[in-house]
Amino acid sequence: MPGKVKGRKARWSVKPSDMANNTFNPIRAIVDSMKVKPNPDKTMISLSIGDPTVFGNLPTDPEVTQAMKDALDSGKYNGYAPSIGYLSSREEVASYYHCPEAPLEAKDVILTSGCSQAIELCLAVLANPGQNILVPRPGFSLYRTLAESMGIEVKLYNLLPEKSWEIDLKQLESLIDEKTACLIVNNPSNPCGSVFSRSHLQKILAVAARQCVPILADEIYGDMVFSGSKFEPLATLSSNVPILSCGGLAKRWLVPGWRLGWILIHDRRDIFGNEIRDGLVKLSQRILGPCTIVQGALKSILRRTPQEFYHDTLSFLKSNADLCYGALAAIPGLRPVRPSGAMYLMVRMRVAATWVEIEMEHFPEFENDVEFTERLVAEQSVHCLPATCFEYPNFFRVVITVPEVMMLEACSRIQEFCEQHYHCAEGSPEECDK
Amino acid sequence: MPGKVKGRKARWSVKPSDMANNTFNPIRAIVDSMKVKPNPDKTMISLSIGDPTVFGNLPTDPEVTQAMKDALDSGKYNGYAPSIGYLSSREEVASYYHCPEAPLEAKDVILTSGCSQAIELCLAVLANPGQNILVPRPGFSLYRTLAESMGIEVKLYNLLPEKSWEIDLKQLESLIDEKTACLIVNNPSNPCGSVFSRSHLQKILAVAARQCVPILADEIYGDMVFSGSKFEPLATLSSNVPILSCGGLAKRWLVPGWRLGWILIHDRRDIFGNEIRDGLVKLSQRILGPCTIVQGALKSILRRTPQEFYHDTLSFLKSNADLCYGALAAIPGLRPVRPSGAMYLMVRMRVAATWVEIEMEHFPEFENDVEFTERLVAEQSVHCLPATCFEYPNFFRVVITVPEVMMLEACSRIQEFCEQHYHCAEGSPEECDK
Ligand SMILES: Cc1ncc(COP(=O)(O)O)c(C=O)c1O
Ligand SMILES: Cc1ncc(COP(=O)(O)O)c(C=O)c1O
Repeated sequence: MPGKVKGRKARWSVKPSDMANNTFNPIRAIVDSMKVKPNPDKTMISLSIGDPTVFGNLPTDPEVTQAMKDALDSGKYNGYAPSIGYLSSREEVASYYHCPEAPLEAKDVILTSGCSQAIELCLAVLANPGQNILVPRPGFSLYRTLAESMGIEVKLYNLLPEKSWEIDLKQLESLIDEKTACLIVNNPSNPCGSVFSRSHLQKILAVAARQCVPILADEIYGDMVFSGSKFEPLATLSSNVPILSCGGLAKRWLVPGWRLGWILIHDRRDIFGNEIRDGLVKLSQRILGPCTIVQGALKSILRRTPQEFYHDTLSFLKSNADLCYGALAAIPGLRPVRPSGAMYLMVRMRVAATWVEIEMEHFPEFENDVEFTERLVAEQSVHCLPATCFEYPNFFRVVITVPEVMMLEACSRIQEFCEQHYHCAEGSPEECDK
Repeated sequence: MPGKVKGRKARWSVKPSDMANNTFNPIRAIVDSMKVKPNPDKTMISLSIGDPTVFGNLPTDPEVTQAMKDALDSGKYNGYAPSIGYLSSREEVASYYHCPEAPLEAKDVILTSGCSQAIELCLAVLANPGQNILVPRPGFSLYRTLAESMGIEVKLYNLLPEKSWEIDLKQLESLIDEKTACLIVNNPSNPCGSVFSRSHLQKILAVAARQCVPILADEIYGDMVFSGSKFEPLATLSSNVPILSCGGLAKRWLVPGWRLGWILIHDRRDIFGNEIRDGLVKLSQRILGPCTIVQGALKSILRRTPQEFYHDTLSFLKSNADLCYGALAAIPGLRPVRPSGAMYLMVRMRVAATWVEIEMEHFPEFENDVEFTERLVAEQSVHCLPATCFEYPNFFRVVITVPEVMMLEACSRIQEFCEQHYHCAEGSPEECDK
C-alpha cells in the first residue's frame, strides 16, 4: 500500500481558501458581535433590516403572486433556462426599461440570482485582482464584500450629508488611477435614502467620461422615490459612458427572497463591445440563472402589477419618512437627514456646531455609533444599524418600512433614550434643547 | 477641467477580466461551433440536453407544484432568508438525508442556487488558485469550468468503461500531490450513467483517507438508480474522510430550473472544523441563497412526494435505457455501455478489437466524435453530445429521458446512419456485421 505519494503529507490539514477568508460581511460581523439583550419590558422593534416584508404590512401585489401560480400551472418553466435567462423574459425586462434615450433589447439584459449576483457578475467581468473600484461612503456593504473576496481593492468616495448626500466629485475624481476598473453609483441610495438630481448625475457622468471609467449603476431602488423627487436612470443621461445598470424585483415588488435580479447593458458607443457581453454570458454559466418560475412570472409581474400598488408603497414610505424625520429632528442631539426615496433614513447622533468641522460630544457616555445603538437595544429594545456598517461612524440607519404605530413608538423610545443620555455640550452655538 | 489624473489614460479601454476569459464551458463551445443544419425531411430529435423536462413526458409530481403554491399563499416566504437558507428548510433536508452511519443536523446543511452553486462554494472554500482538484474523465464539464475560472488546476483521473466506469484507482492516487485540495466523486455519473458499488466506494475512500484528501461528492443523481443497483451515499461508508456532498431538486424531482441545491457537510472527525463551515457561510453571503418560495416548499416536497413518483420515473428511465442499449448494441460499429442510473448512456463509436489496445477505424469518414455527431444531425436530425464535451473523445452521450417512441425512432435513425457509414475494418477479430 502506498503510504505517501509525491511528498503529499499523510495527515489532515484542510484550511479555508483565501477567498473564503477574505469574504467579510461587516453587517454580520458588527451585528453578531452586539451581545446585548433587549429590554425584557419592551417588545423589540427592529429598524435594522432592509427587508420590507418582515412586518407583514407591505405584502406584494396579488398579481405578482398570481403570476407565479400561473407560471407553475403552465408547466412550462420547470426546465433549465438559458443561463442568462429566457429570451422572452429578457424581452419583457428590456421593453419595460426601454426608452428613447437609453434603448434596450433582449440582448442587453442578463437575468441573475438577485441584484447581488448582478453586482457580482459586473465586478467579476470588469475587474482583475489588483485593480480597484470606487465605492460610496456611506454605502451598501456588499460592494466591499464582493470586491475583497475577489482581490479587488476598494476606494471610498465621500457622500456629503449636508448636500443631501451628493458625491464629493473632486475627491471622487482624485481617487481614479490607471487601475480603476469601475465606479459604483448607487441611486437611490442605501443607506442614505437620497436621490440624485439630474444635474448631479450629469456631473458624475462627466467625471466618468473624462476619466474613461465605466459605471456600475446600482439602481435596485430605481423608481422608488417620493413625490417631489424624480428618479433618472443614469443611462438615460449619457450616450458615451458605458453603464451596467443592476436592478431586480427585490425592493419595488417587495419580494427580496425570490432572488430575481438583472443587468442592463448600456453601451451605445460600443466600448464594452462583445467582449464584455460575452464575458458576462460566460460568467453566468457558472451557476446558471435565477429560478425559472420567477422568470416565467416576469411578464405578468411587469405588465399587470397595478400602478396603485407602486403608488401605495411609495406614499406609505413617504409618510413614514416624514413622520420619522419629524420626530427625530425634534430630539436634542440627533440630526436626521431627510430622505427622498428608497427605504432608509440616516441620523447623525453627535450634533456638530457646523456639519463639517467641530464635533461636539452630546452623548459622551458612548464611545461610538455601535455602542449608541447597542445601548438603544438594551434600554429601549429598538434596533437600528450603526452606520459603521456602511463605513460611516457617528450615524445610524433607520429602516422606514415598519408599520406606522411601530415607527412612532420607536421614535418616542429613541427620544426617551436620547433625553436620558444627552449632555449639553459646552460652547455649542446651538441651543441645547433645540 | 482636469484632463488627466495620476496617469490615468484618458481613452476608453474596457477589457474583460481574466476570470471571465478563463470561464469556459466546453459544451457551449463545442455545440455552438457545430454549424450543421438538421435534415429538413426529418423532425429533430435532441438527445443532447440533460434536462428531463424538455419533452413534457416527465412532469414533476403535482405535490411538488402544490407545495410551491402553498408557499406562495402563505405569504411567509417573500422576504430574505438567511444566506444559507431557512433553518426550518435546512432541518428538513437534514432529516431527509440523516441516517445512523452519516448523521445530519440543520447546521450541516447549506442551501444553494442549484447544485452548480453548491459545487462552486465547495471548490471556492477548499482550494486556492494554484492548487489542484481531481476530476473524473469522462466527467461533468462544470467542474473544470468552475475550477479554471478560479485559477484552480484540474487533474483528470480515468474512469474505465470496460469496468462499468469504475475509477482507475492507481492512476487516481498517482495524481495526488501536496497541492491537491479535493477529490470530486460523481456518483451516479453524468455522462456515464454508472453507479459505483459499495466496495468500489470503499476503495475510493481508502485512497482519500491514505492521502488525506477531502472529497466533494456530487450526488445530484443520488437515489436515481435502476432496480438491481443500489445507491450508497459516500458519507455513509466512512467516518474519517471529510465529505461535502452536493445535491438538489433538479434531477430527482424533475425541476432543474428552480435552482435549489444543497451542501451536506459530513465531518465526524472534525477535520473541516468550524473554519470550513464558517467559510461556506461567508461565501454564501456573496449572493444570498436560493429562491425562498422553493425553500418554503421544501418540507412538503420532501415529505409529500409519493413513492410512486420516484418509482415511476426510475422504471421509465430503466426501460428506456434497456431499449436504447439493446438497439445500439445491435448496430455494427457502436458499443454502448449499459447504464445503472442517472439519465445517460455512453456509446463508443469506433469499435475496438479489444477495449483498450487496438483502435479500428470503423467510421473512417469521420475525423472524430464531434464530426460523427455533427453528421448525424445533418443526415438524421438526431443530436447527441460528442463526449469530447466530457474530455472523452470517440464516445457520444445519449440522454434517455425522451419519450419511448422518440427513443426508438432515434435509435433506428442512428442505425441507418451507421449502416451507411460503417466500414468493416481489416483484420478485426470481430465479425463486421456483428
Ligand atoms: C443598494 C443595494 N443593492 C443591492 C442589494 C441586493 O439586492 P438583492 O436582494 O436583489 O440581491 C441591496 C439589498 O439590500 C441594496 O440595498
Ligand atoms: C453531475 C452533475 N452535477 C451537477 C449538476 C448541476 O445541477 P444543478 O442544475 O442543480 O445546478 C448537473 C447538471 O446536469 C450534473 O449533471
